[in-house]
Amino acid sequence: MPKPCTYPFSRRIRATPRSFIREILKVTEHPDIISFAGGLPSPAFLDAPGVSAAAESVLREDGCAALQYSTTEGYLPLREWIAERYHSRLGLDVDPDEILITNGSQQILDLLGRIFLNEGDPVTIEAPGYLGAIQAFSQYMPRFCPVALENEGPDPVEFTRVLREDNPVFYYAIPNSQNPSGITCTSRRRKEVASLLADRETLIVEDDAYGEIRFNGDHLPSYRSLIADRALLLGSFSKIVAPGLRLGWLCAPEAVIEQAVTAKQASDLHSNILAQRILCRYLAENDIDDHIAKITRGYAEQCSLMIRLMEELFPQEVRFTRPDGGMFLWLTLPEGASAMELYERAMKEKVAILPGTPFYTDGGGDRSVRLNFSNADGEKIRTGISRLAGVMEKYIPETDHEKSGD
Amino acid sequence: MPKPCTYPFSRRIRATPRSFIREILKVTEHPDIISFAGGLPSPAFLDAPGVSAAAESVLREDGCAALQYSTTEGYLPLREWIAERYHSRLGLDVDPDEILITNGSQQILDLLGRIFLNEGDPVTIEAPGYLGAIQAFSQYMPRFCPVALENEGPDPVEFTRVLREDNPVFYYAIPNSQNPSGITCTSRRRKEVASLLADRETLIVEDDAYGEIRFNGDHLPSYRSLIADRALLLGSFSKIVAPGLRLGWLCAPEAVIEQAVTAKQASDLHSNILAQRILCRYLAENDIDDHIAKITRGYAEQCSLMIRLMEELFPQEVRFTRPDGGMFLWLTLPEGASAMELYERAMKEKVAILPGTPFYTDGGGDRSVRLNFSNADGEKIRTGISRLAGVMEKYIPETDHEKSGD
Repeated sequence: MPKPCTYPFSRRIRATPRSFIREILKVTEHPDIISFAGGLPSPAFLDAPGVSAAAESVLREDGCAALQYSTTEGYLPLREWIAERYHSRLGLDVDPDEILITNGSQQILDLLGRIFLNEGDPVTIEAPGYLGAIQAFSQYMPRFCPVALENEGPDPVEFTRVLREDNPVFYYAIPNSQNPSGITCTSRRRKEVASLLADRETLIVEDDAYGEIRFNGDHLPSYRSLIADRALLLGSFSKIVAPGLRLGWLCAPEAVIEQAVTAKQASDLHSNILAQRILCRYLAENDIDDHIAKITRGYAEQCSLMIRLMEELFPQEVRFTRPDGGMFLWLTLPEGASAMELYERAMKEKVAILPGTPFYTDGGGDRSVRLNFSNADGEKIRTGISRLAGVMEKYIPETDHEKSGD
Repeated sequence: MPKPCTYPFSRRIRATPRSFIREILKVTEHPDIISFAGGLPSPAFLDAPGVSAAAESVLREDGCAALQYSTTEGYLPLREWIAERYHSRLGLDVDPDEILITNGSQQILDLLGRIFLNEGDPVTIEAPGYLGAIQAFSQYMPRFCPVALENEGPDPVEFTRVLREDNPVFYYAIPNSQNPSGITCTSRRRKEVASLLADRETLIVEDDAYGEIRFNGDHLPSYRSLIADRALLLGSFSKIVAPGLRLGWLCAPEAVIEQAVTAKQASDLHSNILAQRILCRYLAENDIDDHIAKITRGYAEQCSLMIRLMEELFPQEVRFTRPDGGMFLWLTLPEGASAMELYERAMKEKVAILPGTPFYTDGGGDRSVRLNFSNADGEKIRTGISRLAGVMEKYIPETDHEKSGD
């Protein structure tokens, strides 16, 4: 009999939260469950024939280069495309050498944790904040200093206090259609944040995964345009082309890129060069603006359908955000209600939602729910929201009762 | 004028060695230089048409799934293929749940550092040892406890002493055709190592990047077959299919896989699923044994040509290993000679070699040189080795002179 075996796991990995979402997603993957719990783009906008044509060209014309080892920084023509798009879309002046290609923007979060965070270092994150960032940074055992996210952006009073008292290494933000809340930080609040950061060492990490998917209103100024040398900008092809390609990027001053390249090289040498070349070819051969417009229209319709149904069917006490882009919206249940209890009751009716607690680093969120509107089509949204309304109709009055019994 | 900006980089990234190789490779990339400095497979064995056919099938039949988010563990049919091959090739009994797909085996090195190493933890590595492992582990600021690599494997006296005095968390080894030395650890030495580890907590990390590329002799027992619950086995498709796909794997007990999955998810969610599905299709549609036999024959010829020329043309005082597989061999210059000086002189003659110092964590290697024989064809090997012999013919006597003048 082999002796029982234990392994000497690091403090770091023991400090990294298991993904609660991952466990939930396993349960909600069954085909008879309507899921608003995940964060997947719509399959309707994954252009397999377009990618296939690009793959065929790349492997025919540059097969050897696409299959060989490549540079850590990433494929230069792809970095040039990104720089050029920043210029044409946002008026940003970016050099391709200020761009590092990574395995989706998740890898940037890991690399930023790695190159900036010593154990115990203060880091500011929105509350609620993106779970993937909380997981990535947790591995480096920082001290989270959350700032409440209001409808206009981070609470300026809390933000000022955190800057003064905690002096965070960086402030991690998703200013456009935030995950999980769907909130877009206003132009005015961005300028306020930028001016508060101006005289400080605190960096801003601006995760712009959803900036291209904007239903209403103009594109708002990037922090890079407000405080270029303190702003680290993250982008992703997951929402505008395909997440399976696992390609994103960091746009940052060259001194930061240089360290991130060292970390990336030690991590996995370089990102998939076949995927980089296929993507670059795809972008050259297709009208990406047209494609993004289609995605945006589709998600806008799904989002507004979901909101219309919620307004019509949900109990009045349930509040929710009205996103102007992205893939998520955020419910707040009345006092006394539990998102976890709602999740369990909803699962019995075969509809999956995501309770809000994992999006907070310091507790909270137990009355919050994230709903994804990008992955389910109109019919599923209708069926799922009406099932959820049925669950709420029964559950919410019970909680009111419990509350009045306090 | 923007004020000059400094960034608060972590101690970790400041402890990570810049890749000396990377800097050298930049210099040696010019097309008129014959390079034995890199570590690239031969372009002759990158099967672009085969990969293209697989890509076409995958995107036509499973396009949506290949472009969508996927699981952190990796594509199940690919993990099943790997488990089945372990069984058929090495007689190992592996469950697909004991396999995690990663971005090449480099990512495993990072993940293992992450899940096992606290700052200051002892880690044993061969001297010389694989540079990518030194870089990956360095990020977690361990204390390296190197053990000299002899022709039969790690020096058993040193290994015993290190186990007793330092009690390393793990011993990192490349038993088959090691990078950089080309040495294969004998069957007897493996058993000795395994029996020394049997009563201890020290794990063995067995990097088997080159095991499939074996010119002479049978396949030798894997540590997994000798001490299954302490052995973490690494594999890679980079040498047998294509490095550009960036796909490798960890084969380990499920308790280890579970932590590695948490770390991988926080790192980059999952490996490129398009590449995983293309590779899996490629493996199903092609005779991989035949392909590996071709690669092995090709590298065997290139290696034996290089050795024959070195025997014929190099000064007698220059010693070198005779690999029975893999992609590298290892020169030792006579006392008084400097590999760095040889590198510089060789570059003037447009031939690139790799000095040995970065392969040591505690100094040493200044008379060592790594040569790659997989990437250059016969003509380049002939020209390059004869140029290098010319440089040595002039340089080595000078160093003898210097030595006698000590």
